[in-house]
Amino acid sequence: MRITLLAGGVGAARFLRGLMAEAPDAQLTVIGNTADDITLFGLHVCPDLDTVMYTLGGGISEEQGWGRDGDTYSVLSELAAYGAGPDWFSLGDRDIATHIHRTSMLAAGLPLSSVTRVLCQRWQPGVELLPMSDDRVETHVVLPGQGEGERTVHFQEWWVRMHAQVPAAAFVFAGAAEATPAPGVIEAIENADVVLFPPSNPVVSIGPVLAVPGIADAVRAKTVVGVSPIIGGAPVRGMADACLAAIGVPATAAGVAAHYGPELLAGWLVDDQDKQAADAPELAGIAVRALPLYMTGVPATAAIARAALALAAELAR
Amino acid sequence: MRITLLAGGVGAARFLRGLMAEAPDAQLTVIGNTADDITLFGLHVCPDLDTVMYTLGGGISEEQGWGRDGDTYSVLSELAAYGAGPDWFSLGDRDIATHIHRTSMLAAGLPLSSVTRVLCQRWQPGVELLPMSDDRVETHVVLPGQGEGERTVHFQEWWVRMHAQVPAAAFVFAGAAEATPAPGVIEAIENADVVLFPPSNPVVSIGPVLAVPGIADAVRAKTVVGVSPIIGGAPVRGMADACLAAIGVPATAAGVAAHYGPELLAGWLVDDQDKQAADAPELAGIAVRALPLYMTGVPATAAIARAALALAAELAR
Repeated sequence: MRITLLAGGVGAARFLRGLMAEAPDAQLTVIGNTADDITLFGLHVCPDLDTVMYTLGGGISEEQGWGRDGDTYSVLSELAAYGAGPDWFSLGDRDIATHIHRTSMLAAGLPLSSVTRVLCQRWQPGVELLPMSDDRVETHVVLPGQGEGERTVHFQEWWVRMHAQVPAAAFVFAGAAEATPAPGVIEAIENADVVLFPPSNPVVSIGPVLAVPGIADAVRAKTVVGVSPIIGGAPVRGMADACLAAIGVPATAAGVAAHYGPELLAGWLVDDQDKQAADAPELAGIAVRALPLYMTGVPATAAIARAALALAAELAR
Repeated sequence: MRITLLAGGVGAARFLRGLMAEAPDAQLTVIGNTADDITLFGLHVCPDLDTVMYTLGGGISEEQGWGRDGDTYSVLSELAAYGAGPDWFSLGDRDIATHIHRTSMLAAGLPLSSVTRVLCQRWQPGVELLPMSDDRVETHVVLPGQGEGERTVHFQEWWVRMHAQVPAAAFVFAGAAEATPAPGVIEAIENADVVLFPPSNPVVSIGPVLAVPGIADAVRAKTVVGVSPIIGGAPVRGMADACLAAIGVPATAAGVAAHYGPELLAGWLVDDQDKQAADAPELAGIAVRALPLYMTGVPATAAIARAALALAAELAR
């Protein structure tokens, strides 16, 4: 069975663990969001790709959910002593080695998809990890102006530095309209038996992937089952509610499904406490199933993956 | 008093400590060798500039003589786990922060002289540290061919990886002929009351500095006093003998002085055990003084600096 997923960071990585436990023989392709990539100290950092790679490769910091296990912070504290660069983005020494190696390969002319393949040769994540595009796409956040007009910051500055506490007026996926899907992306969607949306942020994780021309069209031609990242009106992790508010979407399981819409989404898994979403008129055309959605461990997550695959099979009949 | 020095790494840095103790009010300019700079993992590493900067700024590893104090090796061991780059050049995590910051500023378009000034704002070495040139110059080592013709390697590969054990056929200062002295270099020589050659490697440390067009001419117009890096027929540190052998110069205090020649060198300090150099006919025109030359600590090194300044004053009369 070939399964292709559009993926953000932590939520997707944890879901993948469960999916791999549930379907160990499936051939998995993960199309990772690269729009929250950021250049820090001249180093190209890919937070979402790395979170998937480290998590599945056994190198993740389990406590944080991102970054390397047992990491230290010598480089960052030295950079701070030089007064260099931003001081609000945490980069451990082990993690920095990944960024140094990636940046060096990019500078040598390798596309990000090839670079990611090289990095994965070490981590052996057990999935094919593809960036959504080899072209640079960056999520910028438009902040409402006060006096001096509106201001735009890189997504990471809003997310990490401002903790998404400043209300966003809009998100711009700079470069997305001119970007091309990375080699293999469209084929992985077209050839998939099942396309899944893991419980990733619909606005700033799945959103940029779908914004790369060609990807949404390919996805629309498939039977897609998604897992709600919202449980009981709140994101399980992260600040998806602040992102949804910016685009006028209710931070509910039903709101997110309606945002994707029945053209994109065939099936939608919600938590038991959101089972009323099955009756929401705005979800007509989307098959909703309720079950426990908290990914409290691999067995619980495997059960969610099992339900997603079962719903996909049911919808494909 | 304005003192200008041409400098390599460890020997120069240690001599400078003594000189600064001896002449605390002197205005010191250090023109550093950059021909042993190397790009590793995409990072621009300046071993000689950093050794001077760290030593005078209190950040040096005293045991090694180079690199940062109390450093760790997380980044390097991760890069090795990726199979990335050379595994024969040691770079600590703290040290890597310097190279990341430098590389980032160079990529932003700052010349190396400006970058070095920024780095020194943190370290406050108490000297003006200038790279010999903002242009890239690299020492390449020609190794004798066996069957497949001769082979050229970067100086660091020969020095660090091969421990200078493979006899060198020649040294090439690639880029030197087209290089321009960095801003302030010629002025610092012309305006100096004294120009000193610390006990640096004459071939691969002082040699490349003098190979930048304009520097040797400016130096020749001054009264230069040098300190022999060779004591009793052997280098005090490093493998200068292997370098001297390649260019057919005897690894003796007299040999090095004759290599510089009386046009460049007015005075030459040798160790007591090399005092016979004073009578060497090939040193006619160079004033030789013998004294203990081992830099066993700051007081001993200050005494060497005192002798150098005294000889310069005597020769200037």
